[in-house]
Amino acid sequence: MSEQTTLDHLQAVSESLESGATARVRYLLNGALPVQDVARLLESSPPKERKLLWELIDDKNEGEVLQYLPEEIGIQFMKTMDTERLLAASERFDNDDLADILQQLPETLVKEVLASMTAQNRARMEALLSYSDDTAGGLMNTDTITIRPNITVDIVFRFLRRHTQLPDMTDNLLVVSRSDRFLGTLPLTKLLVADPSDTVRDIMVTDCPYITANQPVSEVASLFEKMDLVSAPVIDAESKKLLGRITIDDVVDVIRDEAEHSMLSMAGLDDDEDTFAPIMQTTKRRAVWLGINLITAFIASYVIGLFQNTLDQVVALAILMPIVASMGGIAGSQVLTLVIRGIALNQIGAANTSWLLNRELVVGLLNGLLWATVIAALTAFWFDSLEIAYIIAGAIVINLIFAALTGTLLPILLKRLGIDPALAGSVILTTVTDVIGFLSFLGLATIFLL
Amino acid sequence: MSEQTTLDHLQAVSESLESGATARVRYLLNGALPVQDVARLLESSPPKERKLLWELIDDKNEGEVLQYLPEEIGIQFMKTMDTERLLAASERFDNDDLADILQQLPETLVKEVLASMTAQNRARMEALLSYSDDTAGGLMNTDTITIRPNITVDIVFRFLRRHTQLPDMTDNLLVVSRSDRFLGTLPLTKLLVADPSDTVRDIMVTDCPYITANQPVSEVASLFEKMDLVSAPVIDAESKKLLGRITIDDVVDVIRDEAEHSMLSMAGLDDDEDTFAPIMQTTKRRAVWLGINLITAFIASYVIGLFQNTLDQVVALAILMPIVASMGGIAGSQVLTLVIRGIALNQIGAANTSWLLNRELVVGLLNGLLWATVIAALTAFWFDSLEIAYIIAGAIVINLIFAALTGTLLPILLKRLGIDPALAGSVILTTVTDVIGFLSFLGLATIFLL
Repeated sequence: MSEQTTLDHLQAVSESLESGATARVRYLLNGALPVQDVARLLESSPPKERKLLWELIDDKNEGEVLQYLPEEIGIQFMKTMDTERLLAASERFDNDDLADILQQLPETLVKEVLASMTAQNRARMEALLSYSDDTAGGLMNTDTITIRPNITVDIVFRFLRRHTQLPDMTDNLLVVSRSDRFLGTLPLTKLLVADPSDTVRDIMVTDCPYITANQPVSEVASLFEKMDLVSAPVIDAESKKLLGRITIDDVVDVIRDEAEHSMLSMAGLDDDEDTFAPIMQTTKRRAVWLGINLITAFIASYVIGLFQNTLDQVVALAILMPIVASMGGIAGSQVLTLVIRGIALNQIGAANTSWLLNRELVVGLLNGLLWATVIAALTAFWFDSLEIAYIIAGAIVINLIFAALTGTLLPILLKRLGIDPALAGSVILTTVTDVIGFLSFLGLATIFLL
Repeated sequence: MSEQTTLDHLQAVSESLESGATARVRYLLNGALPVQDVARLLESSPPKERKLLWELIDDKNEGEVLQYLPEEIGIQFMKTMDTERLLAASERFDNDDLADILQQLPETLVKEVLASMTAQNRARMEALLSYSDDTAGGLMNTDTITIRPNITVDIVFRFLRRHTQLPDMTDNLLVVSRSDRFLGTLPLTKLLVADPSDTVRDIMVTDCPYITANQPVSEVASLFEKMDLVSAPVIDAESKKLLGRITIDDVVDVIRDEAEHSMLSMAGLDDDEDTFAPIMQTTKRRAVWLGINLITAFIASYVIGLFQNTLDQVVALAILMPIVASMGGIAGSQVLTLVIRGIALNQIGAANTSWLLNRELVVGLLNGLLWATVIAALTAFWFDSLEIAYIIAGAIVINLIFAALTGTLLPILLKRLGIDPALAGSVILTTVTDVIGFLSFLGLATIFLL
């Protein structure tokens, strides 16, 4: 089961497509490859090839493949399907995944899908649709197996045997009252070693973790990680009624998205960035980020422009000034990245911010002094000028301290203002380190050289 | 169960510590707070406070807390413990976690820990210690529940009931031959609905995913994500004997580490970066990265220096040149980030590299043309010179195309050379976009202005 397989399949399929061996590809896509690999194959294909592959998948297999595709890609295909095929495909979905997708399809389509359901399923689906995508309610599934506290283990076993299959990732049964109030869980690992005459109440776990429907998904992910959960019940915050359950497979997606979010945002990329998105879509998205950064660049240039006269007299300054800005940018990015991750992991709060700021300022000062010395020595040697060496050394120390200050406090401030630090942080930081870098270097030069 | 709690606890504990209310803190740390929260509290505390808190944890609770601490921090504490306390603490650990930690402790300590074990446990532990940290063998646990294929479901139930507890995350029983060869799995969800007179062979799953001991952990994570697994058996590649199992809680850690790796590496930070590491440790680690980037900065300055004469005559060039370098850097980082993620997710191979390169070049050209126009207009207006406007426009287009080329091919090349693209990629990319930016802008100016 090597991971290399996806890329091998991709190579094989892409060669078959090119040579026109469509029958071979059709065979691979419809049963010969595991459906998860088919989904990955689509995901790793450029638009034209992706569309071609999709057309080679039999109608009856579409639902299964859609289930494993990233939402953004899946929805593109679903929008091209007629209602009948869509209905057939939707039967394959877990409730929670279907709800996520329905939220993004045109309303008329959604109505038709809902109309095709049994009354019970429709009611459940409508309940799921009422929760936002980024809350526990939007992540939960309704496939719970519930039992009452007063029955015996023996009866639980008989009850379970009446099912033809238990839902995937069932690691515990949920104990509820007659009015559906959540009372506790009965882990299968406990059930299996219990005395048949024990009642559920005797062996159920009542201090188990649970989730309320309006909790944000990031808290859900954190709870799963902290408590090593496979599944957790979701209850209504007020009535304490059981609404559904969340399973680790969906949480893993949240964890990956969260961990990737910072990296992608810092480069101005979307979370659900499709690596193989078509040209125009990619161009537009990238253009926005470049435009925002252009403002930064012009601000920096404006600052340089203030010292036109100084630059005119000492050209060495123009040669050296990018060093000051770049060292500040690098030092600042390191602090920023660390603090953004710390915030995402809920490690940074009022209790430790001042310690952190203090450490970063000292680290900035120490590294500032170290590299200022190195840069000054190199500069003195290069331009044969002790004065310029002192000036660049001073500017480096100043910029690294400002970089530490901005890198630490900026993300914390942005977070408090409700702005995503990963998205806005890097642009603002670069502006600060560029401006301070040019200002301190050219400013000091104006004072001491002219 | 709000995530805010960790930070609230932190605040409360840190206030209690300051006011000298040690008894209160001791109470919180030893039972009043869940052990996972205690671990998070330590993780989120600066060094001095962290050490103080650790000292307030009762000896008998140390093992539990250590279990939930990040390895780097846990090992620091373990190195200060005497052998007896270490032995007591180690009893709390799962085999796989203990093996990871033992690999990093001094050999004499390891020997004493091993000597204290029962013969069976020692043999198991020695086997685990033989696997590297980044393979499936290093991730697996030996707490499997195995059954034979020829027994009936009824006997399986009776066998399970002889246990006082089943291991956490037991979602299936592992079916093995008399010689311990892995034959298949029996999911609990199938066992519970089975007819008591069925044999294990009748209902077991034989085409289930399994892992071989030498597979890299990244493949394990990928398999778990793809197949939505809770646990998977680990077998010896040759003998097909069952060695142990890997559970999703350990895989989640791998997934988080992997996803964070790219972001942290791109900023030159370690994967296991301790947010609250002490000053000197932080300074040293950061200094290395700054030093590497200084080389980049000096290369860029050297390129600018080549055009000293040009800059001397047209000072506007010095003012504008950072814009060209910065736009290239931003555009390149976007491509680099996307490709690094694509490589990490195994999406990018020979079959789609040329399509990707082609798209990025076109996107680079389009965005180059768009922003070159905007920048040229602003420049013409600012410096009242059409010539400089044309020159900067040309430089922007050239640099954005080189940024696309480098951003796409560099990480793929580095990966083939066995160099981590996330770590080396950003430094090299910046060097390229700086050099090409300054070279094209100042070069064009030298040709057309002088």
